[in-house]
Amino acid sequence: MPKSKGQKSEVQVQKSPAEFFAENQAIAGFDNPGKCLYTTIRELVENSLDACESVNILPDIVLKIEEMNQNDFNILRGVNSSKKDATDEGLFQKKKGEKKAASEDGNKKKSSRNEDAYFRISVRDNGCGMKHHDIPNLLGRVLSGSKYGVRQTRGKFGLGAKMALIWSKKSTGVPIKITTSHIKSTEYISTCVLDIDIYKNEPKIIQHKKQKNVNDWKGTEFEVLIAGSWSSYKARIVQYLQQLAIITPYAKLEMQYTNVNDAKKEMTIRYDRRSEQMPSPAKEVKHHPSSVNNLLVQQLLDKSSSKTLVRFLCDDLSGVSPSIAKRVIAELGNGFDEDMKPKKLDGKQITRLVQLLRRVELFKAPDGNCLSPLGEYNLNLGIRKTMEPDIVATFRDKPGAYEGHPFIVEAAIAIGGKSAKEGINVIRFANRIPLLFEAGGDVSTRVAQSKIKWSSYKIDHKKDKISVFVSIVSTKVPFKGTGKEYIGDDITEIQTSVKRALQACCQQLRSQLSKRNALRDAHQRRSRLVKYIPDATRSIFGILDALRKRKADEDGTEEQTSPRKMPRRAGEKERVEQENLAIIKRMNEGTLSEEVIQNCLVEAIEAQSASIEGLDANNGDDSTRNDPDAQPTYIVPVHGLDDSSKDIEHFLFTFRPIHSSLFS
Amino acid sequence: MPKSKGQKSEVQVQKSPAEFFAENQAIAGFDNPGKCLYTTIRELVENSLDACESVNILPDIVLKIEEMNQNDFNILRGVNSSKKDATDEGLFQKKKGEKKAASEDGNKKKSSRNEDAYFRISVRDNGCGMKHHDIPNLLGRVLSGSKYGVRQTRGKFGLGAKMALIWSKKSTGVPIKITTSHIKSTEYISTCVLDIDIYKNEPKIIQHKKQKNVNDWKGTEFEVLIAGSWSSYKARIVQYLQQLAIITPYAKLEMQYTNVNDAKKEMTIRYDRRSEQMPSPAKEVKHHPSSVNNLLVQQLLDKSSSKTLVRFLCDDLSGVSPSIAKRVIAELGNGFDEDMKPKKLDGKQITRLVQLLRRVELFKAPDGNCLSPLGEYNLNLGIRKTMEPDIVATFRDKPGAYEGHPFIVEAAIAIGGKSAKEGINVIRFANRIPLLFEAGGDVSTRVAQSKIKWSSYKIDHKKDKISVFVSIVSTKVPFKGTGKEYIGDDITEIQTSVKRALQACCQQLRSQLSKRNALRDAHQRRSRLVKYIPDATRSIFGILDALRKRKADEDGTEEQTSPRKMPRRAGEKERVEQENLAIIKRMNEGTLSEEVIQNCLVEAIEAQSASIEGLDANNGDDSTRNDPDAQPTYIVPVHGLDDSSKDIEHFLFTFRPIHSSLFS
Repeated sequence: MPKSKGQKSEVQVQKSPAEFFAENQAIAGFDNPGKCLYTTIRELVENSLDACESVNILPDIVLKIEEMNQNDFNILRGVNSSKKDATDEGLFQKKKGEKKAASEDGNKKKSSRNEDAYFRISVRDNGCGMKHHDIPNLLGRVLSGSKYGVRQTRGKFGLGAKMALIWSKKSTGVPIKITTSHIKSTEYISTCVLDIDIYKNEPKIIQHKKQKNVNDWKGTEFEVLIAGSWSSYKARIVQYLQQLAIITPYAKLEMQYTNVNDAKKEMTIRYDRRSEQMPSPAKEVKHHPSSVNNLLVQQLLDKSSSKTLVRFLCDDLSGVSPSIAKRVIAELGNGFDEDMKPKKLDGKQITRLVQLLRRVELFKAPDGNCLSPLGEYNLNLGIRKTMEPDIVATFRDKPGAYEGHPFIVEAAIAIGGKSAKEGINVIRFANRIPLLFEAGGDVSTRVAQSKIKWSSYKIDHKKDKISVFVSIVSTKVPFKGTGKEYIGDDITEIQTSVKRALQACCQQLRSQLSKRNALRDAHQRRSRLVKYIPDATRSIFGILDALRKRKADEDGTEEQTSPRKMPRRAGEKERVEQENLAIIKRMNEGTLSEEVIQNCLVEAIEAQSASIEGLDANNGDDSTRNDPDAQPTYIVPVHGLDDSSKDIEHFLFTFRPIHSSLFS
Repeated sequence: MPKSKGQKSEVQVQKSPAEFFAENQAIAGFDNPGKCLYTTIRELVENSLDACESVNILPDIVLKIEEMNQNDFNILRGVNSSKKDATDEGLFQKKKGEKKAASEDGNKKKSSRNEDAYFRISVRDNGCGMKHHDIPNLLGRVLSGSKYGVRQTRGKFGLGAKMALIWSKKSTGVPIKITTSHIKSTEYISTCVLDIDIYKNEPKIIQHKKQKNVNDWKGTEFEVLIAGSWSSYKARIVQYLQQLAIITPYAKLEMQYTNVNDAKKEMTIRYDRRSEQMPSPAKEVKHHPSSVNNLLVQQLLDKSSSKTLVRFLCDDLSGVSPSIAKRVIAELGNGFDEDMKPKKLDGKQITRLVQLLRRVELFKAPDGNCLSPLGEYNLNLGIRKTMEPDIVATFRDKPGAYEGHPFIVEAAIAIGGKSAKEGINVIRFANRIPLLFEAGGDVSTRVAQSKIKWSSYKIDHKKDKISVFVSIVSTKVPFKGTGKEYIGDDITEIQTSVKRALQACCQQLRSQLSKRNALRDAHQRRSRLVKYIPDATRSIFGILDALRKRKADEDGTEEQTSPRKMPRRAGEKERVEQENLAIIKRMNEGTLSEEVIQNCLVEAIEAQSASIEGLDANNGDDSTRNDPDAQPTYIVPVHGLDDSSKDIEHFLFTFRPIHSSLFS
């Protein structure tokens, strides 16, 4: 209905929601071809997960991405480009005057234009399927859907699949194809090829048929052909799937990427099912009184079937008991009574009611039971199987609420693991979907970075490979910004809960880490010691050999010693002399060779390591260890050891016997 | 039309756009009460600017913000809260078990709850007004509007005033009130009190009447009553108005903030009109072929009144000449001919056409003439009057285009000024509205921070107060992210243009800055010298007086000098002696007093400064400057001056005559 406004013949137009979102794709995450590819994939995969979880079926999802260039696409689409490409070469060259400008500015654009890439995406699941006649309206109409309501849901605005359709319409003009068999009518399979009328925001059916379901298949396969960019978003897609595998360990996820022109680029990622235990589905709940506003109460009153105000408060809101409802109505004052019809409330009365509902503290807190967190067991499994870390600790904090919306924080901290990086790596989930963008301002990042004293839990936040997992589920995730990619740290209740959960994980880790640190120290010491063995052996043998030779040469001049030799106690001098003589004797006999010394050192180190690692020390061979008094002796770097009272002094060197108790 | 899906009795619902945006307010900038207040103000102010500019009237806009607390609001609204507040105290206290948790988590929430603030916002302009019967549809229906089309427009999604209505509905339940007189029917004033039916996305008229326009008033006044937070967004609102004054110097802007409960907080900001010159209105243009997609071409074909394909290409797109159109059609190949009816093209043919249109380089570049940049003159004025900087340079780069969308970059750089901070401060505008958020990733910030070599333009980017203004206008501003708050730096054409514009500004500044730097140096030197005068005077007089006394005491022992006194040349010794005698003579006569020395020094410094500042040196008084050989002499810190050949040595000190040429 065009109407004029203003003298410049302004034309007033009414847009359909489909037109609006076609023109403002970025709202739904369709910013550019690369992001469009990424968002299409994640929206379809998440729809598939929802389809499985809604009927409590362990998800089995296969994602296929087939990349092709424009020629392949044209053949597939049946577009007539059979003439040799660019017959009229002049059309594709800039005019002379613009050539310079082109080489300055246009190169990037031009090259990206020439690389136009097309993708056939298909996602197949074993979920509930769709009823034959529902398909067009579910997928060919923007702002229609089944996911609205006060409930924990995946997805951003419920626009997902429709935005994929709009993007395919814009970028390739190819309609989407849905093949599905509904869980309650598996005798046939429905196929629907679907377009959308952007102006009317209505589905445009190209084909819609049933065929016999011979294999009793159930589920849905969604196929779409879009422009995109694999190179720029490949890493994100892989990261998304990995994180999805962590937070959805009960799903089997497979991604097959094929490239029509370059088989070398092809890749397959498969995450097998790690758990048979699915979280219970999220329940729809009523609004909590502390979260209401004028519009919402008006809407609730309009829809209510309650006969009286007191019943309305108890039945159409959550957490309101009859006795509290009566006290609230009494407090409302003149013009209100318990038995008045809810629909009789006028705007001013609604305002009064809203003001009161938002202030009353006596209502039962919002109930976290409606939520569907993953569970510690699953989270642990997901992390272990996907990341293979050294240690994991998990924790679920008690349910909380902010502004009337219940939430639950689950957290895990893993140390080490394949592909883990040094430092703190925060992996975030909201309503069980990974959040990949805008990590900087997120409450989980901020708490992990600055509110946890890592060192007090024996964790080195710079050198250890720390993976921090935070999963927040809520009926209303308080995203910041419009991208729905991060949760601000300005909601005290959530910040506190995240901190509490992370601290609980850290506490669990501390004792494990003490053991681990001891083990690591032992390993490090051992490898350090082993490194010394050849040198030490050579030195010791050399010294002993020199001693032997000198003894042989100087036999008789018994008391002549180096000025450095200053035995502290009277008896010691003689004992040292005795030991020296024994050593020399063994050397002369050939039983104390370089090899023997080396073996002794190796043996001593092995024994020490074994005892640290908790192995039975008696498994060792015929060494002196069997003698309870004979402590193994180590060659260790001397600095840092200050008990020199038992040093064995010699005019050429000092032996310091180190008892294994020092290492325990 | 509720339909069931899945066995869990999923209900399929269709939402109206109004419902969608009511639930996803953040998309339109209505994130929280503070941001809602800010966004409401800016949307209304921008609507007013548009209303004036569309009919080429110099805007005169008055914004009134009246803050009140809940009690004031209730009285105003007529809500019955006459009973003493909180009769049933228990309702507002947490249960025992929850008290501790409350003191941990809830404090912040609770206090903010108690501070619920309400705002009556009114914005009045002298613009085109609205026709009586258009008002409800223009303001009471989401996704209706007059601003759609390929054209440079303010605003984000065209949702502005309707979102303000939705927010008022949610937060206060008070409808909006519009008073307007249309420019073509000024005999009456229309008043409309308007609500919106969220489900139907339809206006709900509360009152709609005409009255006689006795004062021949024209324009619109929009009044809305919303919840908000002044303290958290006051700074942003003030900043927004200041920047709006810079980019809209031809507008008179006034903001009056009043507070019902605290008169001390009240404030008024007024920006007078600085220029009578308004930018010409932006023109609507056709799409450029390099910006098309399948959906768009389909839409254009549907709407086209062209009889042939060749006419369609020339008339429904921009930059296509008949000869190029014919070459394009020839290149399209089989199935296409010049005279075919545009509506006959099928989906595959559209795909083929789109592929070709996007690749052809021969089309005339998108035309920047449709755009409406502010103009260098106005930008300069806006900055001068608002910021009062020391120097401003402005530049408008030649129009450019990216992906078929024309754009123009205007830039200004100002040095110094009131309220300017040290370092680089980037002030950004897109289609002549200030961008206040997410500055970090913006192309202007990045270019200013890292692509400009400030030092090579004599600008110190750390110590100078540099204000960088970048205004980008386009038919499609390439915002990044969904918030429409910044422009990415990944579009080469725009990045290059911003850099070019800033460099041009810098180049203009360089010569001015050379002069400025010389001036500043002179000022600094002068103030440094003036500081020395009392000490220097005292010292010199003391020395000369000592000389005089010694001379008087030691008369006759003419040759007796300090060992330090070593005149280099034969004649010099005698000359120095002569000078000393002359000085002593004057001192004895009383014509060389401390006061005389001080006056001489002051005089010399003034003369030097005056000559640097370009004043006529002959304006000075009876000093020795009139003698061409007599150079003024300065007392300066001696280090750094290495021409000691002319030093006047004395046994007590060294005079070094400095010629003014050293400073030039």
